Amino acid sequence: MKTAAILTIGDEILIGQVTNTNAAFIGQKLSEVGIEVVRTLVVGDNEAEIMHAFREYEKEFDVVLVTGGLGPTHDDITKKVVADFFNVRLVTDDSVLANVRDRLSKRNIAVRKVNEDQALVPEGCTVLMNHWGTAPGMLFEREEGFFAVMPGVPHEMQNIMTEYIVPRLKQKGAGQVIKHRVLKTTGIAESSLFELLGDMDSILGGKAKLAFLPSQFGVRLRITVKAGTETEADSVIADVESKIRSRAEKYIYSGGEVDIEETVGRLLKQKNLTIAVAESCTGGLISHRLTNVSGSSAYYNRGVVSYSNEAKMELLGVPADLLDHFGAVSEEVARSMAEGIRRISKTDIGVAVTGIAGPTGGTPEKPVGLVFIALSDSGGTIVRKHIFPDERLRFKDRTSQAALELVRRRVLGLA
Amino acid sequence: MKTAAILTIGDEILIGQVTNTNAAFIGQKLSEVGIEVVRTLVVGDNEAEIMHAFREYEKEFDVVLVTGGLGPTHDDITKKVVADFFNVRLVTDDSVLANVRDRLSKRNIAVRKVNEDQALVPEGCTVLMNHWGTAPGMLFEREEGFFAVMPGVPHEMQNIMTEYIVPRLKQKGAGQVIKHRVLKTTGIAESSLFELLGDMDSILGGKAKLAFLPSQFGVRLRITVKAGTETEADSVIADVESKIRSRAEKYIYSGGEVDIEETVGRLLKQKNLTIAVAESCTGGLISHRLTNVSGSSAYYNRGVVSYSNEAKMELLGVPADLLDHFGAVSEEVARSMAEGIRRISKTDIGVAVTGIAGPTGGTPEKPVGLVFIALSDSGGTIVRKHIFPDERLRFKDRTSQAALELVRRRVLGLA
Repeated sequence: MKTAAILTIGDEILIGQVTNTNAAFIGQKLSEVGIEVVRTLVVGDNEAEIMHAFREYEKEFDVVLVTGGLGPTHDDITKKVVADFFNVRLVTDDSVLANVRDRLSKRNIAVRKVNEDQALVPEGCTVLMNHWGTAPGMLFEREEGFFAVMPGVPHEMQNIMTEYIVPRLKQKGAGQVIKHRVLKTTGIAESSLFELLGDMDSILGGKAKLAFLPSQFGVRLRITVKAGTETEADSVIADVESKIRSRAEKYIYSGGEVDIEETVGRLLKQKNLTIAVAESCTGGLISHRLTNVSGSSAYYNRGVVSYSNEAKMELLGVPADLLDHFGAVSEEVARSMAEGIRRISKTDIGVAVTGIAGPTGGTPEKPVGLVFIALSDSGGTIVRKHIFPDERLRFKDRTSQAALELVRRRVLGLA
Repeated sequence: MKTAAILTIGDEILIGQVTNTNAAFIGQKLSEVGIEVVRTLVVGDNEAEIMHAFREYEKEFDVVLVTGGLGPTHDDITKKVVADFFNVRLVTDDSVLANVRDRLSKRNIAVRKVNEDQALVPEGCTVLMNHWGTAPGMLFEREEGFFAVMPGVPHEMQNIMTEYIVPRLKQKGAGQVIKHRVLKTTGIAESSLFELLGDMDSILGGKAKLAFLPSQFGVRLRITVKAGTETEADSVIADVESKIRSRAEKYIYSGGEVDIEETVGRLLKQKNLTIAVAESCTGGLISHRLTNVSGSSAYYNRGVVSYSNEAKMELLGVPADLLDHFGAVSEEVARSMAEGIRRISKTDIGVAVTGIAGPTGGTPEKPVGLVFIALSDSGGTIVRKHIFPDERLRFKDRTSQAALELVRRRVLGLA
């Protein structure tokens, strides 16, 4: 099992209505188990095109992973073509039927013929039970070939990949391992981080690759190592990581694909601290992110989205004369909001943001993108000023990231 | 010029390090000028694979658009393969050389051999000058074929598409137009919507295609029409849309790619209504979404994330005995929260949600996924119960969507 092709089926991808994130996910997973992805193809919901691809790819590659076109409606034809290709009938799988009925009845949706048809699978395939939706995955596995079909709904496909496909491919073995490790940084620009890390050769020693992946949440560093064994790869990665950390530790908020809200959540739990949030320009995003973490009720007490000035006064006790004198977007109001939310919630930490998300509402003195982030705790109140001149949603992302990073640093004694 | 294939070259896409947004962009543009994208392929920086794809696609499709592998470093081999494929030499183009020198000198970068090599182009091609970078686009245009190669850097590719490729393809004419129209629905399952619409032939009359695209936010319906002229296509789309609307109007919250928070925002503005939100399980997401819309301060007054019971009592005035007697996740508490946030905010509408996001915290009577959504306005308070047994973040998405949908329906007199 050395080579693979990925086949995505769906008109919506061809015409660019949907970006092919499924192929990216599958490519990553195959690459992690040491299998080389040679081609990634997209075709429409078109019988001849799908059949043509099946014929060519099944012959040419060890592993063929297909996704899309398994829904219950008329435009989904993948399953029929799969059955024709392997020259078998479609038969009802009782466990899939039970799953479909169970899932729909839980949602009080009547089970219809189109739903029952989702339990039809090509005779002789291994059914990959879909516990995250109604269309099952299907696997055709022989000595010399591995051909799997998965639904196109991203989280269903991802779960089927992770639960069934990846473990089986790992077992079959590829003769090499490719390992990645991600370190997530925030609060430093890509070029500054590059300079800070300095000579790449001295970090990588010719044994690893390092990629810089910037987004509005910060710069992700990805270390990639190809090696004969897992142990060998792990040791190279550990070495590279420790060199990077010795130069940029302060900016790294997680090793691996962990978001900062989870890092912050762990820290708060560990130190037995509680938090409350007062937001203006981020409109609830900071609270949303903190509560995305399961178990966050242990440390997250409440949040207030004080969009209007009255809300700032009534809910947080911000004095009217502060708003009059300095304006809603000011260091003074941010400070008062953070202290207010901490006081009324009786939490250890109060965080507040006030800024101008844009695209309108800016002035020469207070441009779009200006934001004040305040944090109040037993040690006092600190305020940070940032300017994030960006699109509205990216501004909200960046501001929420900077606020969570301020909490992280404060709890660690770095701010 | 009726059919097209898109070929993207680059290892980083195969292994999923980068999502193939270039193919999506090109697909959209081709589709807009009436050319049908039949296949989208990704191959690595591998001579044999690239050549194989060139041979097959140039023969099979009217239009072949290639992107990627034109950079100055050793791993970029596309240009060499293009020259081999057309059996011509690489020759220096003076205007490209001047462009390369000019761009680098402006950035104070020394011009090296690898940079000068970017001015090498296959003899006889039409150079598409890259004013946004150093690697030129290349076009091979004949009566029966249109073969273009573009750099892979997204904004360079996009500019070359928009400036050169799209106008030429328009001029050549596809002899047809392809038009799409999206209708977004929510609050109805894919299979139920399919049944509700009934006989597809009577809706589509053989002149259009209809795709069902489900996500946690609802089912998007995409109507696709291929026709001789724009007017003809528009008339078919209008006809199909009116048939769909006559059967499912209630569930359609937008025509086009508009999110429900924007639809709700427009309605509130139009009817001069204000809103405030009290959230428990969604943790701020509803407020976040409402404030993603520029200008939302005109109708959005404030939000409260009352995660703890004390927050529900202190901020919203929920009586302690309601919480004791019915529990935080109950119809009664949802009602009290909605009425509370409306009272303290003095808004026209108060919306509240309380539920169990999971994965922990469920009981047999109150399972993970259970949620109560309440809306209070001058006409009284209504409460809806849902069960969304899903992953935590998808649960939050679905609940926020259902809450916004309830606002939409209420404002329109449908709930």
